[in-house]
Amino acid sequence: MLNVAIIGASGYAGADLSLIVAKHPNLQIGGLYVSEGSADAGKLLSSLYPRLHSYVDLPLQPLTAEALNDVKKCDIVCLATAHVVSMRLAPELVDAGCKVFDLSGAYRVNDPAFYPEYYGFEHENLKYLEQAVYGLAEWNAEEIKKTNLIAVAGCYPTASLSALKPLAVNNLIAEGSMPIINAVSGVTGSGRKASLTNSFCEVSLNAYGVFKHRHRPEISHHLGQKVLFQPHLGNFKRGILATIYVQLRDGVTDEMIEKAYKEKYAGQNIVRIVDHWPAVKDVEFTPFCDIHYQREGNTLVVCSAIDNLQKGAAAHTMQCINIRFGFEPTAGLL
Amino acid sequence: MLNVAIIGASGYAGADLSLIVAKHPNLQIGGLYVSEGSADAGKLLSSLYPRLHSYVDLPLQPLTAEALNDVKKCDIVCLATAHVVSMRLAPELVDAGCKVFDLSGAYRVNDPAFYPEYYGFEHENLKYLEQAVYGLAEWNAEEIKKTNLIAVAGCYPTASLSALKPLAVNNLIAEGSMPIINAVSGVTGSGRKASLTNSFCEVSLNAYGVFKHRHRPEISHHLGQKVLFQPHLGNFKRGILATIYVQLRDGVTDEMIEKAYKEKYAGQNIVRIVDHWPAVKDVEFTPFCDIHYQREGNTLVVCSAIDNLQKGAAAHTMQCINIRFGFEPTAGLL
Amino acid sequence: MLNVAIIGASGYAGADLSLIVAKHPNLQIGGLYVSEGSADAGKLLSSLYPRLHSYVDLPLQPLTAEALNDVKKCDIVCLATAHVVSMRLAPELVDAGCKVFDLSGAYRVNDPAFYPEYYGFEHENLKYLEQAVYGLAEWNAEEIKKTNLIAVAGCYPTASLSALKPLAVNNLIAEGSMPIINAVSGVTGSGRKASLTNSFCEVSLNAYGVFKHRHRPEISHHLGQKVLFQPHLGNFKRGILATIYVQLRDGVTDEMIEKAYKEKYAGQNIVRIVDHWPAVKDVEFTPFCDIHYQREGNTLVVCSAIDNLQKGAAAHTMQCINIRFGFEPTAGLL
Amino acid sequence: MLNVAIIGASGYAGADLSLIVAKHPNLQIGGLYVSEGSADAGKLLSSLYPRLHSYVDLPLQPLTAEALNDVKKCDIVCLATAHVVSMRLAPELVDAGCKVFDLSGAYRVNDPAFYPEYYGFEHENLKYLEQAVYGLAEWNAEEIKKTNLIAVAGCYPTASLSALKPLAVNNLIAEGSMPIINAVSGVTGSGRKASLTNSFCEVSLNAYGVFKHRHRPEISHHLGQKVLFQPHLGNFKRGILATIYVQLRDGVTDEMIEKAYKEKYAGQNIVRIVDHWPAVKDVEFTPFCDIHYQREGNTLVVCSAIDNLQKGAAAHTMQCINIRFGFEPTAGLL
Repeated sequence: MLNVAIIGASGYAGADLSLIVAKHPNLQIGGLYVSEGSADAGKLLSSLYPRLHSYVDLPLQPLTAEALNDVKKCDIVCLATAHVVSMRLAPELVDAGCKVFDLSGAYRVNDPAFYPEYYGFEHENLKYLEQAVYGLAEWNAEEIKKTNLIAVAGCYPTASLSALKPLAVNNLIAEGSMPIINAVSGVTGSGRKASLTNSFCEVSLNAYGVFKHRHRPEISHHLGQKVLFQPHLGNFKRGILATIYVQLRDGVTDEMIEKAYKEKYAGQNIVRIVDHWPAVKDVEFTPFCDIHYQREGNTLVVCSAIDNLQKGAAAHTMQCINIRFGFEPTAGLL
Repeated sequence: MLNVAIIGASGYAGADLSLIVAKHPNLQIGGLYVSEGSADAGKLLSSLYPRLHSYVDLPLQPLTAEALNDVKKCDIVCLATAHVVSMRLAPELVDAGCKVFDLSGAYRVNDPAFYPEYYGFEHENLKYLEQAVYGLAEWNAEEIKKTNLIAVAGCYPTASLSALKPLAVNNLIAEGSMPIINAVSGVTGSGRKASLTNSFCEVSLNAYGVFKHRHRPEISHHLGQKVLFQPHLGNFKRGILATIYVQLRDGVTDEMIEKAYKEKYAGQNIVRIVDHWPAVKDVEFTPFCDIHYQREGNTLVVCSAIDNLQKGAAAHTMQCINIRFGFEPTAGLL
Repeated sequence: MLNVAIIGASGYAGADLSLIVAKHPNLQIGGLYVSEGSADAGKLLSSLYPRLHSYVDLPLQPLTAEALNDVKKCDIVCLATAHVVSMRLAPELVDAGCKVFDLSGAYRVNDPAFYPEYYGFEHENLKYLEQAVYGLAEWNAEEIKKTNLIAVAGCYPTASLSALKPLAVNNLIAEGSMPIINAVSGVTGSGRKASLTNSFCEVSLNAYGVFKHRHRPEISHHLGQKVLFQPHLGNFKRGILATIYVQLRDGVTDEMIEKAYKEKYAGQNIVRIVDHWPAVKDVEFTPFCDIHYQREGNTLVVCSAIDNLQKGAAAHTMQCINIRFGFEPTAGLL
Repeated sequence: MLNVAIIGASGYAGADLSLIVAKHPNLQIGGLYVSEGSADAGKLLSSLYPRLHSYVDLPLQPLTAEALNDVKKCDIVCLATAHVVSMRLAPELVDAGCKVFDLSGAYRVNDPAFYPEYYGFEHENLKYLEQAVYGLAEWNAEEIKKTNLIAVAGCYPTASLSALKPLAVNNLIAEGSMPIINAVSGVTGSGRKASLTNSFCEVSLNAYGVFKHRHRPEISHHLGQKVLFQPHLGNFKRGILATIYVQLRDGVTDEMIEKAYKEKYAGQNIVRIVDHWPAVKDVEFTPFCDIHYQREGNTLVVCSAIDNLQKGAAAHTMQCINIRFGFEPTAGLL
């Protein structure tokens, strides 16, 4: 059994990840940590999340200097921490011999210019940024196997790239066109902290972050072409539905599209090409990404649905861990 | 006081309309009707909608031949009926001297070919189809004043056209491009009848009607250009949020866009250009259509939000009635 | 037109009240105020509540010493403020000649011992506490007409007392028994401020405040007998449903119960004895209180439903204003 | 591996049960069945429930005479069928050597008079009714081990009895008093079939079935004393929250209450005595029953929360199967 330390375990993604680790046949929780000053330090994780009772009855430990030494003894460290915290912690942990899986945005784009523009800070660890592999499980398995620092893909990018990459790598998208990603996320996407924005009485359905959301350049970078990404906040807890509009190259046939998706995902367990328009409820509390598409002339509409905390965070992390260590691809997940 | 008969008063739009008529200073309800065989015949409308108690405590009468004679004596008849029923009733009522406001799709597109393709029937009253005026209140007031048959705009088309027409009539949309309308509707949009699709446990968030929804050609027809319209069902009762992606013509300046919207809607009470991304909750239970837009290069993102039963049906009908009879534009609405 | 100042207008009850005043034929808004240091000071109320656009486009003014002088010139002052703030402001405003309607708990119970125990402070204005009249519109109209300080009933107490008082005043409740009030409130009941409790992702359905909720002694005091009150937080925005279990005195007949309710509420517009079990949706966005009951032997189950921001706060305040000034009982409300 | 046939697998409880069986280490699905004329016959279960894709990709077979022969060869048959169907099928299957777990109400009360009064039919198989054991896992394990016909407890009764039985068996409830059970259920409780009652737009929060709900006598029968049971429909999909009011016998101490709960449930995995008021979200998609209580004088308030499809149906069935076959108590569940 390998030991997994989860730092930032009190958040929604950290809690989901704790449960997945607890159920995994080859892993056990080495420790759950929160920041040193957190009001949750010392509490049981299951006191914050009663649904985890009996599964994960472990305390949230403050990440003191001493605790960090314990963390370094773990085989695997998952960082469900703020971007800057991840940026600083990851190198130290990699150097200590841990395999690090970072759920933040700190190592997702191998371009230093990206960070000041979209995250508001200069990246301090460019050497590690260079080594980091983008954790998009179905696409980067070979590289994931070889690195010690995996930057797990963001929630919106996972939904978007899973749907768009088969088209892009097969060169089916019209040159010069810009796919439009209209996505709606559940409120857990904005994290577990009180704010008027995610107050029950204020949530409805509305666009936000027009043109400027951090996930837009993340998607573009890993797709290899520009996209227009428009996020919305929806009145549900978990899930992302991305409805994507693509201009196809002239001459693209139905068969070419089908082949692009089928070749990539046939036999895959987590990304599923389904025969109906996916709904958020289809993937809620599951690791799946459901994709369906339809075409009219050179316009293709593709929908993909994920649970933003599962395939959009915790389950995707576990896919990367399974790949890195050669475990069953769906261990802990199905 | 003019008398208003509402046929199909038991549905969601009919109920909202009954309440608006009851509050209107110049109107009174002349009768509420349901189809002859309806299980609701004889019941009080307020027994179906307890929130209407004290406002509208009138029975739902079966539309017998005799009842139809009473209807014909009313000044105004609102048809919240099935498309075929409206198609057949409207001419008879117009001939009887009534002003007819049809909330169905039977008279919205002055092109006979539209009906077999999208509604599955041949239009039987082409002469009346020709006279009918499309009830898009902010745009067709002069024609509405002169006709006796108003085909009130559909819910999705109202949200879409209110946002797009200022661009189209000012020739700001890139030639050959096709605006993309990504819209999410609340469940009342699918009517008050039991079905698995609108069962509480089945509703989530998903696309439907890709490429083929009836409102797509309705929007294209009244916009004067093709659009891509993608509806979704969302997990809320009332409201539509349309997020619209427009390719602008080269040379379009910010001022041109602002002028297009401001000139049309400045001083308007119902369509409001707001300074934030509108949310469904902002317009729920109100007659408003809230619009906001932002641009990046030649791409414009426009959002519009309406209550699908108000500006998308009942309140829009009342705007048309107010225009037709020269009442205060917002009488019964604010 | 009388002038109404609303202090604490940025909260949910204050916003609803602003809209009601704006629609009232005899009233106009004299000013909207927030506390001096509020982050909302200077903003338009409609920027916080876009649904109020066109209805109430007035700024939220900070309640400086100077502003307080303006408030004192208003005929009516509504306090939608914290308990301690109300306790201190009300006397000064009454002395300035204003009619004061307090939506807080500061003057609801004419027993000084109540405040330290349930609100954590000593009441500083006992003379005014003595004069204050409990604003339960259907029950205290005669006293409301004569006072200048009305303590509008709380939300849970309004739902509970409207259902229980007809039984109590007719002596139908078994001596020594304690009615049990099981109530579920929408999340607006906990106010417009960010907290983990009312975060979208945390709200579900659960009991809270067992035995100790402040509204329990408020109900008991105004009912004239002890009750057991058990509040719950439910996953909806507006509304309260109270399901009440009453042990009847031996010898109570069906006729006695019917008479108790009918005599009180027949011909009333706001409290409605309905022929079905009321649902929260029946009263949402309305001023109504819907009541239904059924009996088995000596056990009576009574349900009452209100919108906690309307009959539970803003609409109830307006009923009291209408009574105090001799306006139409439902002016501004229907 | 034992074979499990699930009849009525297309319903909400059947679908949850299919997933649990599929994950169980000692069981496999022997067949999924629907009634012969069902519109779902021939479809994959996962086409009705896309979240089951990859887990349960089996067809729903029509229960023809021939299919029934296949069913009889299974070790275990679960009946998620209508009451009358279960009443007729169970004996035949027991006689064929199957262990039968009935999720309907057909064998829950060993009193023939109960059926005509509450279910509207005469029980046709009194001999089997006599042998049937009530499947309340934590209470009837010894009897469950010995029978071939288990009538799994209903959803509301499971929530109610889990909370009340420790008090009753320890004689802590005041003689002559009647515990009051105020319960709110999610909409899946009313089944997967279209009706206006469970239409998305009609669901809110309201009482129903006052005094007359079938689960009231089921609870009373298995508690050994009368109760008042008041169900409500709430606006959520899964879950039941029961808030229970109990009059304690004079002389009952805090220790006696604590002992009653602790002795029964200490070390139990499924029923959890928790240190906070349970919320529906705490148990959603879990097999747990969370219980918390507090006392004031001789009044005890107890809350219990379950997922109505899990501990209220499918997970509870699996607990009974695990008991009957000597599997790990939580196999397939945690």
